[in-house]
Amino acid sequence: MPHIPLPPHLPGITGLLEYRQDTAEPIRGLTQLILRGESTLTFAERELIASLVSHRNECRFCTAAHSAVTDILIGESDTCTLVKENYETAPVSDKMKALLHIAALTQRGGRFVTESAVTRAKNAGASDLEIHDTVLIAALFCFYNKYVDGLATQLPDDPAYFKALGERIAVSYGRRPEGYEHSILDH
Amino acid sequence: MPHIPLPPHLPGITGLLEYRQDTAEPIRGLTQLILRGESTLTFAERELIASLVSHRNECRFCTAAHSAVTDILIGESDTCTLVKENYETAPVSDKMKALLHIAALTQRGGRFVTESAVTRAKNAGASDLEIHDTVLIAALFCFYNKYVDGLATQLPDDPAYFKALGERIAVSYGRRPEGYEHSILDH
Repeated sequence: MPHIPLPPHLPGITGLLEYRQDTAEPIRGLTQLILRGESTLTFAERELIASLVSHRNECRFCTAAHSAVTDILIGESDTCTLVKENYETAPVSDKMKALLHIAALTQRGGRFVTESAVTRAKNAGASDLEIHDTVLIAALFCFYNKYVDGLATQLPDDPAYFKALGERIAVSYGRRPEGYEHSILDH
Repeated sequence: MPHIPLPPHLPGITGLLEYRQDTAEPIRGLTQLILRGESTLTFAERELIASLVSHRNECRFCTAAHSAVTDILIGESDTCTLVKENYETAPVSDKMKALLHIAALTQRGGRFVTESAVTRAKNAGASDLEIHDTVLIAALFCFYNKYVDGLATQLPDDPAYFKALGERIAVSYGRRPEGYEHSILDH
């Protein structure tokens, strides 16, 4: 039961964005820019950061939604599962491991992002803007996770819901042909 | 030293909003709506929530900035100091104590916001929208705190900086005559 009356047919964040539509607009705008705007990070890489942070915040709605999108963008579900389990041993590039580490530290608390974690990312080829965007995505998903769970929004128990939601979000990315993301995620 | 090159004359969040101006726009827009838009929560009450959350995230820039604004809006500095120390014994209304408790639980993690914490706020007269907005403000400041500290932004060591920043923000509230906020904050 949500803590406030939310539209029963709109679970998770979707009901909150309907509940207060004026604040929903900049929330959607920021998400669009940072996840779907121009970037040297691929859509899948940014969705992986969102999935990892949501998983670490134990936000089941956001984790399921963004894992579904990631799986669709990459074309398989192993990578996202392995990143959530342990990004250091997951099949992603060294740069991505270093950025996922920065995201994980941001989730724990901003002051935990050390100089050495940032140096590691730079040495692996990450740009200043990629480091900035990683922290921004991680912080944004901490916001989403707290908003969604702090109001006890409804969590659908049918996995088909998240598959369909993932498809809808993937379409908003102008989903590329299968396999497109592989070269960037591979070692 | 910030983790990325930020304008040296712009500490804390101010340098980040300059660094990436496209994402700054919806961040500013959301803040304007939820802190400075129409609400049955006073400006000072909303700034108290921001101060408490920033304090609990140990974000020194945001805590100093929003405590300064709160102090200016209320006209004294005891209330904000006492709220950060222990909101349960601070000189604020029962409704405000219950909302600050919800904010503190949101800061800890969305799933810690219990039914009983929400019932307490409702029994003290809080509306659904006030509960929603409290969670949204708390989540937004977790975002700000992680963004500001995750990139190791500069922290001015001169307290005069925060007094001046507080004055600038208070002006953006169309600062009311002194004493205006008292009736709502008092028991």
